[in-house]
Amino acid sequence: MHRLFAVLVTLTLAVMASAASAQADPLPSWNDSAAKARIVALVQAVTEPGGKDYVPPADRIAVFDNDGTLWAEQPVYFQLAFAIDRAKALVAKNPDLAKRPALKAAAEGDIKALAATGEKGLAQLLAVTHANMTSDEFALIVRDWTRTARHPTLKRPYTQLTYAPMRELLDYLRASGFKTYIVSGGGVEFLRVIAEELYGVPPEQVVGSTIKTKYEVRNGTPVIVRLPEIDFVDDKAGKPVGIHKFIGKRPIAAFGNSDGDFEMLEWTTSAPGARLGVLVHHDDAEREFAYGRTSHIGRLARGLDEAPKRGWTVVSIKKDWKSVYSAR
Amino acid sequence: MHRLFAVLVTLTLAVMASAASAQADPLPSWNDSAAKARIVALVQAVTEPGGKDYVPPADRIAVFDNDGTLWAEQPVYFQLAFAIDRAKALVAKNPDLAKRPALKAAAEGDIKALAATGEKGLAQLLAVTHANMTSDEFALIVRDWTRTARHPTLKRPYTQLTYAPMRELLDYLRASGFKTYIVSGGGVEFLRVIAEELYGVPPEQVVGSTIKTKYEVRNGTPVIVRLPEIDFVDDKAGKPVGIHKFIGKRPIAAFGNSDGDFEMLEWTTSAPGARLGVLVHHDDAEREFAYGRTSHIGRLARGLDEAPKRGWTVVSIKKDWKSVYSAR
Repeated sequence: MHRLFAVLVTLTLAVMASAASAQADPLPSWNDSAAKARIVALVQAVTEPGGKDYVPPADRIAVFDNDGTLWAEQPVYFQLAFAIDRAKALVAKNPDLAKRPALKAAAEGDIKALAATGEKGLAQLLAVTHANMTSDEFALIVRDWTRTARHPTLKRPYTQLTYAPMRELLDYLRASGFKTYIVSGGGVEFLRVIAEELYGVPPEQVVGSTIKTKYEVRNGTPVIVRLPEIDFVDDKAGKPVGIHKFIGKRPIAAFGNSDGDFEMLEWTTSAPGARLGVLVHHDDAEREFAYGRTSHIGRLARGLDEAPKRGWTVVSIKKDWKSVYSAR
Repeated sequence: MHRLFAVLVTLTLAVMASAASAQADPLPSWNDSAAKARIVALVQAVTEPGGKDYVPPADRIAVFDNDGTLWAEQPVYFQLAFAIDRAKALVAKNPDLAKRPALKAAAEGDIKALAATGEKGLAQLLAVTHANMTSDEFALIVRDWTRTARHPTLKRPYTQLTYAPMRELLDYLRASGFKTYIVSGGGVEFLRVIAEELYGVPPEQVVGSTIKTKYEVRNGTPVIVRLPEIDFVDDKAGKPVGIHKFIGKRPIAAFGNSDGDFEMLEWTTSAPGARLGVLVHHDDAEREFAYGRTSHIGRLARGLDEAPKRGWTVVSIKKDWKSVYSAR
């Protein structure tokens, strides 16, 4: 029996290997550019058995920023769009809420007035739209929003604004034995609702900003309650801290698009061995948005300046991507 | 080619299934007790394809307390023993440190005097033994300690004081498609150094208490620095909070040994579907330690009282375990 088993396994593996070698381009939405070649070269280097840069699957950790890297982030971060839509719905039900300037501005969709309310205003908005409810309740509200909301200028569900080339890249890395994580400045409980469906990333592989929560038994039913208090901000120097706290391993590949991802790329690429740091540059006003050095959202200046000397790859959406959005 | 492939896969799977059905008892260190039967029944229920309690592998999350559940915790938590050993070494090098009462007590191994220094004293001990160094430096110190330290009464390395029946259980669950997590009141960076070697649990599947850290670039080299400030206490009601924060999924099986695990078991077992809550009861003074209702460390009172009505399984070390410690 054992012998038969061994023969069958050997034959099966041989057939599988032959099928793999004949496989199609894993990144069909990418033009055959230097950026694509560097990504493929890293994957081949760390997966080649016996190669000098070989990394065992358990340590093949890849981290992805979300806003502006896996899906769009203009004219405002989509989680802010969610908060605004939510404020509108809540103010419609309870007009008294509009007595608070931040809620009034949000309900009117007046981003400028909302920004003028400062940190205190944003905390008010967060408390009303993101907290003082159970985690299950919040997840339902987010789920419902992703099904009904539409992007203000592109007039499509936000869930159709993920980037096809990046989704292929996630699939390609996973097929190459990588564990793919999202490491976002956005809220972890917001992202976990959608990350699996959009990106194939399960909840336990989403790292993000957190608000404090508490455990409570309500009428015999345990719940997790979301409190109106920031716990951790997963941005800039917070990204390596978040990676270290949640994953506890140093990634070998990091993908971002703004200076908020700088430290994540720095942390990832400054360890020994083959490493990959990639910045997506939004330079395609025609098919997407063009912004960077001076924009409020997704500012990318230091990253562009230092990418060459740090060996980071800058992806031009205009030149390197055949298509932009995923058609779903 | 495809056809040959399909035939080979089918044959291979058939041989594998036949091999599996003939496999030996996956829990040989357990006596054939009701406790063992309930564990096996849960695993069979959630893994039976088409069964009413079937759970897809992605949702087969099992959480384990560490101290007193996976390894011993007497006469003091092993991480406290580490802090004491570390204080001894540091005071020997720098006698001035003994001017601080907590450091003096720890260096003298005087647990009673150490406890008398209260929260302030423990914070001092934590700051000196656990913080103000990089995460890499801390990991090296912990690694070195696990190789050299000996348990004060059992005179063996702490790493030999893991429980064989629980390690079998971890293996059994993983072989049944479960993802096994440690959810400990202990420090996450302490545990991650040893969890893989001791339990086969990788760093990203260790949830625990955390201290604050910061990211810093020192002479061009990025480091994570451990700060002398508590970030999160993963105990009691903190355990479901930690599970929700780090994993983002509700477990279907939880294993603990003290009232510090009560909320974790409650959170796990009060959701619909097949669920398992297990408490290890330390009732074997001969082979291990006997404690519970009144002990300072590992107190188990409410858990014993409520286990029957909550359907939780109480494991008697004396009656249910054939052997106790892993021989490594």
